[in-house]
Amino acid sequence: MTFPRLATYSIDGSTRYGAVVDGGIVDLSAKFARQYPTLREVIAAGALTRLADDAARLRPDHALDAITWLPPIPAPEKIICIGVNYPDRNAEYKDGQEAPKYPSMFMRTPRSFVGHNTPLVRPRASAQLDYEGELVLVIGKAGRHIPESAALDHIAAVTLCNEGTIRDWVRHAKFNVTQGKNFDSTGSLGPWLVPYTDEKQIADIRLTTRVNGETRQDDRTGRLIFGFRYLINYLSTFTTLAPGDVIVTGTPTGAGARFDPPRYLKPGDIVEVEAENIGVLRNGVIDEAP
Amino acid sequence: MTFPRLATYSIDGSTRYGAVVDGGIVDLSAKFARQYPTLREVIAAGALTRLADDAARLRPDHALDAITWLPPIPAPEKIICIGVNYPDRNAEYKDGQEAPKYPSMFMRTPRSFVGHNTPLVRPRASAQLDYEGELVLVIGKAGRHIPESAALDHIAAVTLCNEGTIRDWVRHAKFNVTQGKNFDSTGSLGPWLVPYTDEKQIADIRLTTRVNGETRQDDRTGRLIFGFRYLINYLSTFTTLAPGDVIVTGTPTGAGARFDPPRYLKPGDIVEVEAENIGVLRNGVIDEAP
Repeated sequence: MTFPRLATYSIDGSTRYGAVVDGGIVDLSAKFARQYPTLREVIAAGALTRLADDAARLRPDHALDAITWLPPIPAPEKIICIGVNYPDRNAEYKDGQEAPKYPSMFMRTPRSFVGHNTPLVRPRASAQLDYEGELVLVIGKAGRHIPESAALDHIAAVTLCNEGTIRDWVRHAKFNVTQGKNFDSTGSLGPWLVPYTDEKQIADIRLTTRVNGETRQDDRTGRLIFGFRYLINYLSTFTTLAPGDVIVTGTPTGAGARFDPPRYLKPGDIVEVEAENIGVLRNGVIDEAP
Repeated sequence: MTFPRLATYSIDGSTRYGAVVDGGIVDLSAKFARQYPTLREVIAAGALTRLADDAARLRPDHALDAITWLPPIPAPEKIICIGVNYPDRNAEYKDGQEAPKYPSMFMRTPRSFVGHNTPLVRPRASAQLDYEGELVLVIGKAGRHIPESAALDHIAAVTLCNEGTIRDWVRHAKFNVTQGKNFDSTGSLGPWLVPYTDEKQIADIRLTTRVNGETRQDDRTGRLIFGFRYLINYLSTFTTLAPGDVIVTGTPTGAGARFDPPRYLKPGDIVEVEAENIGVLRNGVIDEAP
């Protein structure tokens, strides 16, 4: 891949960000951390593409196998996840209800995610850890009441999410899926940010999820029920979108809960979420320490 | 009131924190901002009570009418709100369902809140702005899998919330109340943090909400369906609670939506949330700018 990619990572106990280039990663924190402590501030300054372009001419500081990948934005102001946003997935609920008029959504804590190549944690509380591969928009320019026509101008970058879910806990309560979506280290974000270029980059790309090499989810973003322009317009009706905000746009049909019997993740499994123009987000699975 | 109170505020365009004393507020940022940029870091260092005690001997730097009150923790890692947590409120839903086995919950963005004395904003999108008075726990000591017996040791402070809600938007979607709970500036937090002392401080205190002087909600925390110890234990089953985390513990019966016809808030109204041992959180109401 030759397109620019920016990542947050740790090495020797220090959290840094950099640009992925041939043969490794260029440490951008060394040069820019004073001005921009994290990629969130890089994005807020509109400097993401410039930093990536500059780094493309530099030699890598670290080999990729020397770093621990972290979610690209360590502490976003908000992480908003869209539910039930691909065709057939509404039908999967088998509750006889029509397709919804507006998107369903919930928030996740940064703590519920790990980065690329770090294992997801199946918690003590449940064996129903499930995968959900999703495309992620990262907001660049702040805005409220953003019209659909200008919506894509507010995207700084795209990345991937395994929006890992504890199935029995999403229905623990009378309303809301919050607890089943927020177990520590049950999802992943990454591996990197790809700066947004134009609508073609995201409008109709293939999104797949594999478990141990077997394809479980396979769809195209062109089939989203609530598309990217609509989502940015709708969200900005109630909240000001801010630089670094993470919008997880929904998962195709084929999560493990929908098989009969269900096929939940277990320790040793490898889950890969892949999208054209972005990359592959790969995670193992371990049990929570007893 | 003579008990210690710590607040976040702005003056002359600068955000600060301080201690409320007789005749005004002692600016603690001037002395401690390098070490503790916000009250979140003060809490993480376990220094809340010490700073309050020190300030009690000092003269105020600002009169209270010279400051703009802000939510006490400007950027918590998470703000978790508990739904349907007082008796009769479950019955208000009139859906024939039994009392729930586990608490319902959702998250709010910091941006959805203003501080004390700043008006709530009724958005363009809806006239159904409603009040919900609630007691708030602020976490001090981090923890996961916290037993009920040790739960209260993890509280650093208490405060109040008007968990303002856009009623028609909480049912916009198939699942989840997220959008109706996250309109910018529709809720409030404050006026201040009162450091936690012992269980008696919060176990059975009176919590009331008034609109234009008329009492609309009036109940006691001793009647919570899911009590404070239970909530901290339950939340920590799935997420690590972190210093500065905000837990909004639920509202008594009597929100405006439950009247026939409903009594929503309108510009010019004054809403007051009051609890024994904590204070009064007061907000006006204005319309969003067109």
